[in-house]
Parts: sequence; C-alpha cells; structure tokens
Amino acid sequence: MPCGMIPVPELRTLPSRLARLCLDVERFCRDRLKMQDSRAWLLAVSGGADSTALLCIMTLLAPRHGWLLHVATVDHQLRPESAGDATFVAGLCRTWHIPCRILTADVSRLARQNGLGTEEAARRARYALLEQARRACGATAILLGHHRGDVAEDQMLRFLRGTGWPALGGMRAEDAERHLLRPLLCTESRVLKELLHHCGITWREDASNADIRYTRNRLRHTLLPLLRTENPRLEETCLHLWELAGIDGDYWRQEMERHLARCPWQETPGSVTLPRALLRGMHAALRLRLYHRAVARLARIFGGQARSATLLALDQAWQEGRGGTTFQLPGNIMARLSGGSIRFYVEKRQARQKS
Amino acid sequence: MPCGMIPVPELRTLPSRLARLCLDVERFCRDRLKMQDSRAWLLAVSGGADSTALLCIMTLLAPRHGWLLHVATVDHQLRPESAGDATFVAGLCRTWHIPCRILTADVSRLARQNGLGTEEAARRARYALLEQARRACGATAILLGHHRGDVAEDQMLRFLRGTGWPALGGMRAEDAERHLLRPLLCTESRVLKELLHHCGITWREDASNADIRYTRNRLRHTLLPLLRTENPRLEETCLHLWELAGIDGDYWRQEMERHLARCPWQETPGSVTLPRALLRGMHAALRLRLYHRAVARLARIFGGQARSATLLALDQAWQEGRGGTTFQLPGNIMARLSGGSIRFYVEKRQARQKS
Repeated sequence: MPCGMIPVPELRTLPSRLARLCLDVERFCRDRLKMQDSRAWLLAVSGGADSTALLCIMTLLAPRHGWLLHVATVDHQLRPESAGDATFVAGLCRTWHIPCRILTADVSRLARQNGLGTEEAARRARYALLEQARRACGATAILLGHHRGDVAEDQMLRFLRGTGWPALGGMRAEDAERHLLRPLLCTESRVLKELLHHCGITWREDASNADIRYTRNRLRHTLLPLLRTENPRLEETCLHLWELAGIDGDYWRQEMERHLARCPWQETPGSVTLPRALLRGMHAALRLRLYHRAVARLARIFGGQARSATLLALDQAWQEGRGGTTFQLPGNIMARLSGGSIRFYVEKRQARQKS
Repeated sequence: MPCGMIPVPELRTLPSRLARLCLDVERFCRDRLKMQDSRAWLLAVSGGADSTALLCIMTLLAPRHGWLLHVATVDHQLRPESAGDATFVAGLCRTWHIPCRILTADVSRLARQNGLGTEEAARRARYALLEQARRACGATAILLGHHRGDVAEDQMLRFLRGTGWPALGGMRAEDAERHLLRPLLCTESRVLKELLHHCGITWREDASNADIRYTRNRLRHTLLPLLRTENPRLEETCLHLWELAGIDGDYWRQEMERHLARCPWQETPGSVTLPRALLRGMHAALRLRLYHRAVARLARIFGGQARSATLLALDQAWQEGRGGTTFQLPGNIMARLSGGSIRFYVEKRQARQKS
C-alpha cells in the first residue's frame, strides 16, 4: 500500500492485543511520564520500526489528550540511504498531517573536530539538533522510541563500562534535564512490529544496525542472544532491575537534597566545592554519589554515567585526609582535596599547556 | 617432584611479584576481613588451583600471625576422580603438617530427597559439612578460595537471575552469618597459578568445570570470554562494582538498623511482622530491603539473593493499601498484608494440603 493511503490507526479497529498495547503506553505516559493534556511533543523518528511505531501510537493517542505532535528526523549523512529514510518519515507525516522537520547533521566533521568516535559524535549531534527543534516548535519534551530491549542492551553496556548504581539500571524513561521522554520503554519491541504489520505501515531497516564494528550492535547480535538462552525472560528481568534503579535513584536524589539543604555546596562558573561540613559524618555511599553529581554538574556528561574507579580512589584519598591531592576526571575535570573539602573544577586546556 | 618433597614456600625466597601477592592477601586478611592473630581457621580445599593456592598462601602467612590451620576437603562422590582429589589434598596437608579431614557428601541422595538440581544440592551439602567441621575443630571461620574471576562470574549469574542491588555486586569477602571468609577475592587467578608453578605445587583439574550442562560453566566458557573482548579489564571493572555494592550494603544495613531500633519488627518462630508504624513514611528503597531482610531471616536463603519481581509486586500492593492480599515467596514463605503492616511467615506444607 503506498504511503499516501495509510489511515491513522484507530483504537476501536485494532485487535484487543494491539489496543491493549496502545492503552498500556497511554497509561505509562500519564502515570509514569506525567504527560499533561494539551501539550506539544516533538517525536524523534528515524524511520526504523521502533520510532515509526511510536509515531503510530502517539498519533492514535493524540486526539484523546489534545496533544499537538511534531516530528523531527535526523539525517546523519553516514549512509547512502539516510536521505531516503528522512523522505520516508516526511512522507508518512504528510499523510497523517503532522508537521515534520528534517534535521541534517555533519557527523564526520563533528567527530573529526572533537576527536570523537562516529557513534558518540552521531549521538551528540542528534540530541543537540533535536533539542534545537524542540525549542523551535515549543514542545514540552522530545519523545524517543526506546523499548525494553534497549534497556537490557543499555544495562550490559553500562556493566561493561563500570557504571555504578543506580545508573547501571539503564536509561530512564524521563530525563528532565535533557527534556527527553521514552513512552515505549516498558514495551516489547515484538508487539511494536506487530502493530505496524497490522496497520500496513512499513519501516526502514538501518543497515548499520547490523554493523558489528559498533559495540552496541555486537551486544545485540552476539551477547544478548546468549543471555536469552540462559534466561528466556531476560528483558522482563532487566526491567525489574531498571525499576529498582529508578526507586534507588529517587531515594539518593532526596537524600542528597536533604544534605545539601542543610549545608549547600559552593558553586562558581566552572567549579563546585563540597565543603568539609557537608562531607563530614556522611556515609561513603552518599559521598560517592555527591562526587558523581558534582562532576555531572560540571561536565553535563551525556547519560550521567559514573566512573566508579576514579570516584572510589578519590573517596579513599578523602578518607585518608590526603590534602593537596589532585585527581583527573573525564571531560577535563579535576578534583582537588584540601582541608577535608573537595573542589571540582574544569581545567582549561590552554592554561595546562602553558604551565 | 613427589608431594612429600614440596617445602612450605617462604616469603623471602619468592620473586617479588609473588611475595607481593602474599603480602596483598595478608593485608586483605587483616584490614578487610579483620582476621585476628592466634585464631584457628578451617580452609576448604578441593585440590583445584585456587584452593590449593589458598592453602599455600595461608600456610606461608600462618606463622606470622600465630594462625592455626585446619583443612577440610569435600568428596561429593559425583566423579570417579573425586576420591583421588581428596587423597591429593590429604597428601599435601600431611607434607605440611596440617590436620586434614575428608568429608563425604551423598549429593545424589540429597538432590533426590529435596528435589534440587545437582549443582545446588552439592553446594548445600558442601557448606553444611564444612560448617560441621568448622565447629568440630573450633575454627573461627571457613576460608574459601574464590578470586576476582569468580566475582565477575557471580555478578553475571545474579544479573541473569534478576538479583537486586546491592546483592547484584556479587559474593562478599565476609559472610558473618555463615562464618565464611574469602581471602583471595580481590586476587587474579592467573597469579595464583604462577605461585603454584613457582613452588612446584601441582593441583587437580576438576573435569566437571568444563561441563557446559552447568550454567556457571557456560558463563565461564562462552559469555565471559565475549565480555572480555569488549572490556579486557573486565575483572577489574567488576571489582569496582563489587566495591560499590559493599559500601551500599553497609549503608542499607545501618539504615535498616536505625529504623528497626526506633520501631522493631515483631518476630515469632516462623514469622516476622513489619508493623505499619515502621513502614509508614519510609522510602520504597528502604521498604524493599526490609522485605528482603525479613524473607532472608525466615528462609536463611543461601546467598541471600533478592527476587526483585515479587518484592516489587508486594510493595505495589502495600502502597495501594490492598489489605488481605497474600503473596507466595520462594522457600514456602508467604507475605500477608493487613492494616498497613506485612506479616511474613513460613507456611507448613501439610497444613496447606489439608485446607
């Protein structure tokens, strides 16, 4: 069926299994993501099955909530088919009368200029462009098509990188700082494809998803299938861990805020100081998370993943009262111990080269 | 070199790398395991490389601390070579003048009687026999040969099983309740073999370690090598996670004790009740850990691993104030909600069949 003839699916015409899928997503949007009625949302749609299903479900749900949808599709210009993917998304949006922007990223240049890998450069470019588009169309948040399979993958990636807890639990459904929401995060990807099949909606296969030069793809194609043979309900198991991580994340946020309200950290542009009075008497579990928060504040690290090893070494030094010690952290951030307090600051590259 | 001629290794004759290994273990025993001087210890030695290295290192360190060593070796009678393994251990002990007991377990019978898998039955039998032997020889604790490779393996196993945090961080170096200590837990197994080679000490290879019918062996031989190609420093990374889990474990223990001191749980033989006054106003992160503790108290579950899914469902019911709801937990333990409190109790199988 040509794109122009695909009607917007309707709840009442869907088989009960697929209607339930849509209603589950609706409940998730309402109860977990607190998505209010009559708001504008920017959907990031690549044209792959997951984000096309997101577009389909949100288009179906939008009239029930007065949601105004915008779509953005990012052309990373890394594959010959990428322009075609963007055209596909634009075509579907035209059919459904949803405004769509095609955003073009020069990933190769960004990678070269910042000394980044292609995967990381593409990710940064994508999120920066989406955030610009979100502001331009006045959307409350960017909606992404990640599903429960991505949670399992993300947990394994983070495990391999030495991410601490609760970040090990994987990407969250809501990232307030970056205005991101993931309405499908608890949904099985298999059901998403079923919905597309049923509605006669095609999608584009991204050939680079099979490219095992990328860590994420190696995990997807070799490691996760192995794990699934050990635990056929792996994704459900991972979702429970994800759930626990969300609860603990909330707990630690509250605890940090309680302590910081009593004794705030000192902040200047480019530095955060955790005073002795704040750290003293605090359990190491909380101190380590404060370090992580201070670093994230300075670095605005994507995903905010802790590097446990350095923070453990820093805390060891603090416990031993090693004044004057300086630690180098990722993103050109330094941590300097002095008199029982710790100052985190961004070191200027130029200044270091001169000294 | 026949067994009878192998001298006890001495620190001063070891190359510096191996002497450092022994001194690192000594520091770990002293600082982390708080192993006091002039105590008796029971070493669990299977005859494999790891536990034979444990025997070697502890024999070397014992005179420096006035430690009295006993050895126990468990013959699980599952392989034709198992009696030979036990004889090997006994021979090495005779050479080094260390008292050694050979403990015989009838694993097949235990598995049959209790409806357990062979792996689990062997584990239970082993620990029960070792504990008996520990009491018989008046040892303070049982020392086990687990090393850092076992930590990585254990984390993967627990991840697959849906274990919560901090139990996900893997086996601890000290298990006070079961009187277990793991002096080699931060040590690389490669260095342990180097030590044995250098000292001319042989060991027995357990053929069942290659048997991929066992989950643990499949992880060891297929999954972990894959993970190591992604992160060549995997074991170090896992050790950092292990470290964080230890810190968090300590934190949550303290928090629970603080709350229980203010409002204790009510305990009778076979039941633990968490009163409403205790649970009310408590963060879910803490409530979930209290449930886990209550269950562990009743079940004395081996390893004390949380099953996140059931406890999450139980907490959901508690939050919704669903009185009268009963949950079935592993080990024939039930949890019953009533008036905002939760009663955990062991259900008698007979009683259930009659009703």
